Amino acid sequence: MTHPLFAKHQSTLERALQTAEQRGYWSAYPEMPSPRAYGETAAADGEAAFKAHLGKSFTLDQPGVGTVGREVSPYGIELNIQYPGFATETLLSAANQARKAWSLASPDTWVGVSLEILARLNAHSFEIAHSVMHTTGQAFMMAFQAGGPHAQDRGLEAVAYAWNELRRVPATAYWEKPQGKNPPLAMEKRYTIVPRGIALVLGCCTFPTWNGYPGLFASLATGNAVIVKPHPGAILPLAITVKIAREVLAEAGFDPNVVMLAATNPNDGEIVQKLALHPDVRVIDFTGSTRNGDWLEQNAHQAHVFTEKAGVNQIVIDSTDDLKGMARNIAFSLALYASQMCTAPQNIYIPRSGIRTPEGTVPFDEVAQAIAASVQKLCGDPAKAVEILGAIQNEGIAARIDEARALGKPVVLDSQTLVHPVYPDARIRTPLLLQLDANTDEAIFTREWFGPIAFVIATDGTQQSMPLAGRIAAEHGALTLSAYTTDAQVADAAHEASVQGNVALSLNLTGGVFVNQSAAFSDFHGTGGNPAANASLTDAAFVANRFRVVQSRRHVPARSTADTPPNA
Amino acid sequence: MTHPLFAKHQSTLERALQTAEQRGYWSAYPEMPSPRAYGETAAADGEAAFKAHLGKSFTLDQPGVGTVGREVSPYGIELNIQYPGFATETLLSAANQARKAWSLASPDTWVGVSLEILARLNAHSFEIAHSVMHTTGQAFMMAFQAGGPHAQDRGLEAVAYAWNELRRVPATAYWEKPQGKNPPLAMEKRYTIVPRGIALVLGCCTFPTWNGYPGLFASLATGNAVIVKPHPGAILPLAITVKIAREVLAEAGFDPNVVMLAATNPNDGEIVQKLALHPDVRVIDFTGSTRNGDWLEQNAHQAHVFTEKAGVNQIVIDSTDDLKGMARNIAFSLALYASQMCTAPQNIYIPRSGIRTPEGTVPFDEVAQAIAASVQKLCGDPAKAVEILGAIQNEGIAARIDEARALGKPVVLDSQTLVHPVYPDARIRTPLLLQLDANTDEAIFTREWFGPIAFVIATDGTQQSMPLAGRIAAEHGALTLSAYTTDAQVADAAHEASVQGNVALSLNLTGGVFVNQSAAFSDFHGTGGNPAANASLTDAAFVANRFRVVQSRRHVPARSTADTPPNA
Repeated sequence: MTHPLFAKHQSTLERALQTAEQRGYWSAYPEMPSPRAYGETAAADGEAAFKAHLGKSFTLDQPGVGTVGREVSPYGIELNIQYPGFATETLLSAANQARKAWSLASPDTWVGVSLEILARLNAHSFEIAHSVMHTTGQAFMMAFQAGGPHAQDRGLEAVAYAWNELRRVPATAYWEKPQGKNPPLAMEKRYTIVPRGIALVLGCCTFPTWNGYPGLFASLATGNAVIVKPHPGAILPLAITVKIAREVLAEAGFDPNVVMLAATNPNDGEIVQKLALHPDVRVIDFTGSTRNGDWLEQNAHQAHVFTEKAGVNQIVIDSTDDLKGMARNIAFSLALYASQMCTAPQNIYIPRSGIRTPEGTVPFDEVAQAIAASVQKLCGDPAKAVEILGAIQNEGIAARIDEARALGKPVVLDSQTLVHPVYPDARIRTPLLLQLDANTDEAIFTREWFGPIAFVIATDGTQQSMPLAGRIAAEHGALTLSAYTTDAQVADAAHEASVQGNVALSLNLTGGVFVNQSAAFSDFHGTGGNPAANASLTDAAFVANRFRVVQSRRHVPARSTADTPPNA
Repeated sequence: MTHPLFAKHQSTLERALQTAEQRGYWSAYPEMPSPRAYGETAAADGEAAFKAHLGKSFTLDQPGVGTVGREVSPYGIELNIQYPGFATETLLSAANQARKAWSLASPDTWVGVSLEILARLNAHSFEIAHSVMHTTGQAFMMAFQAGGPHAQDRGLEAVAYAWNELRRVPATAYWEKPQGKNPPLAMEKRYTIVPRGIALVLGCCTFPTWNGYPGLFASLATGNAVIVKPHPGAILPLAITVKIAREVLAEAGFDPNVVMLAATNPNDGEIVQKLALHPDVRVIDFTGSTRNGDWLEQNAHQAHVFTEKAGVNQIVIDSTDDLKGMARNIAFSLALYASQMCTAPQNIYIPRSGIRTPEGTVPFDEVAQAIAASVQKLCGDPAKAVEILGAIQNEGIAARIDEARALGKPVVLDSQTLVHPVYPDARIRTPLLLQLDANTDEAIFTREWFGPIAFVIATDGTQQSMPLAGRIAAEHGALTLSAYTTDAQVADAAHEASVQGNVALSLNLTGGVFVNQSAAFSDFHGTGGNPAANASLTDAAFVANRFRVVQSRRHVPARSTADTPPNA
């Protein structure tokens, strides 16, 4: 008999599996924060629940030592939330205790409990949205969608992939080997799924749930205990997540310490290293800097390490039949959450001789200006602009704008500081657009300039731009590549560059889809094949190593007699 | 249209997929070296083909520098085979050139070519059997079965798992997202399988083909180029394999350098390190010592590293209703290829108070003597014994017997030197059986004593033996665990120990199945969950990381109109 929570969510799971196989559009969780989808009081209840956290101790009934918590809202409101601190050995010891019964539960139990947690998270989408907004700086709509339903979709996707691997292993098998004139050898074999142990999720400060849920749910659905260590700048969204997971686990009869929070204050490098190298930690999911990700890959040998790190996303402009649409689309990609997205474009290559359009060749400067003008238009009205730009997550990102200005390169569009109509202390910046040259500035544009900083880069032509984009993706990492062309041969070259760089390609986006966006069940986020990530969200490789299969075999009476094998 | 070689072998592939899913018995390649299966002249032809290699240069039309080759037959015949040497950069450059067209071929092409290579290898089973025999020391029957059809089955299994992952990724998808009253967003998406690059297979000297084929075929069937570096002591079986692979590749229109041989002389550590750390090498499959395997895991960060290393295989004896059958079965496991198998048992735990049997309690000494007597019986007639024992692969293994004797522990059965009736210079040894104590000798029996060395270990009872076995497997690695008991609760405890140690369990083997044996499509060889191996042969985790998926997306006209989504 399958677990009741599995049965409860089975149709959702089946639909997720089917969609992931066909890779069309589907979402399990409504992306519009509407009363029709979430209930008449959901918005107010969620906001109230968020406000109730402010200035309080966040209660989690897990072993703790002291308190931590120094989150700062990019919108300038006072957070002052305290979380339980922890001692590494105590935390791991509790996780080890909790995982005993959990690891012996069945795959349908792991999956059923995971799906119930996702459903509860969905019901808390408004509370999570406010918590994402006030830790990451995302505008409310994005915080709701990317932090709520889209993150939940990514979690569901991981559960579906996990289930797809788990269900491939039969519980038992009958094995019968013919022996010619002698009776066949017959055995019964049992196959037991054995989770790896304790998994560690290391969150980031810009997309704590969207980037955290795939690893969390892939590990949980394969029977592991999970310790969630949020970025010290964005604890609340994952603390709420952990609290809900623990409630569901307890209701299902498990020790809630199967999922625990490891909250820290800033400058937690030493604590993270200690956790990450502990022999009991067997799986690590990391989102963050290349330096930290590389360190994990090269030092946490006891664990299987999945990383998403920095990269350089690029747009190659060759030609277009819709200059306005192109400029508008690119501008939105640059403005969205002030480019604080791992998928946001940074390098925009334009032939110095201009690009072909139905209206004739448009010079380099005009193309650059078209993009700049579109950005300016999006940012013209601060009240509307802040709903796209959001706020800058931390002072380091704001300082990077100054660092870029100090390069002394021609400024195509300067970054502006806007005043938020509701939050006067919010840290709002519009994109900075600098002009570079492909032949002389490679040292600048092969770095990731995380935040609202982009470069229009003059090239000798598409024949230079395209291989350059492929090579930079391969050497420096990238999660997205975008290309604009009306020429089928150039489209083929873009495909070649994407294959060379192991990077997802978007062609001629001029409408309502943006290169930053990655849809669960359809778009693979990251390929795992360039330095920006060693894994893809989500494929079989992302889940298949999170458990092992232990078999046992013993003789049983043969069902066939000599010389009449059953499989003949 | 699928590739003709895919179509040719499709039914074999389908059967492999089905068997791997149900995990019953099946073999694609006949394990009996009979004229009915292989043709009237196959045995003679194969032997002649083997003899034709002796004293000659093994011709491979690949870029080479000088010659290497110092293989020594454990049976004492002169080999004197010369292979092309190589320069690392030249070899990798040729592989990079060759992999261009290969990586752009389709999954069904990679799989079809791989299956054709396996079919050709099967037709060369006799030639390969002699080459395995005279490099590894295996007796002819084992060399034929394990080196030929069983190795080919393992290769086919890897191809089947690879295909199962490859076919899950659709070539294209239609994605349509409803936009309420506005027209839906519609995109066409393409998904391209991108192989990792160059794969390196590092072979061992005891099962060059059985342990080499899974990695070789998993990488090849996912579109990678493969460099096969055999152990310097067992080059010929893999050289023949590479030659056949290159012939098939060339016939299929590909650059044969997609598969290349990297033969070396003994003490090739520096060469291997250089190869293994090269940035172009993206996948490594290794079978060998823990020291070398750990080094690869901890240093070859640019590659995905699959290892099979040393371990301590164990038998827990609690009780039995067939003492004779048990003793005979264990004795055969110890004698088979003189325990030069990664799956051969080493530690045999017996309660010092004796074991329960239908005839009453049998004392420790009698159980130990029953096993010793059965070994002696198997080895009594040298002519018959050598067909089980084979020869000792190298002098180091023979020396280890002396090292074990020098421990000064009670000798239950001494190792003997036998004279082979056909090969007077063959290095033949029978198993050495020492008596140890669980409470005082752990430092001895937690080491792997590779070769014909085993320990009967007195324990305080099964309640000590079982957790000890589980812990040793978890801490020191193991590929097999065997237990004998008539008690259902003890069988449960054995299951727990196997789960704790992440090791495959065999219960009450008293007949024609031996713990050393691992059947393709049914038995997972290694779990990947203890120090003996970081991967399992074969599961999804073994293949899923050998390629990446690169997608591209572009807008297309929507098939639906506003408010009428196709998936509604």
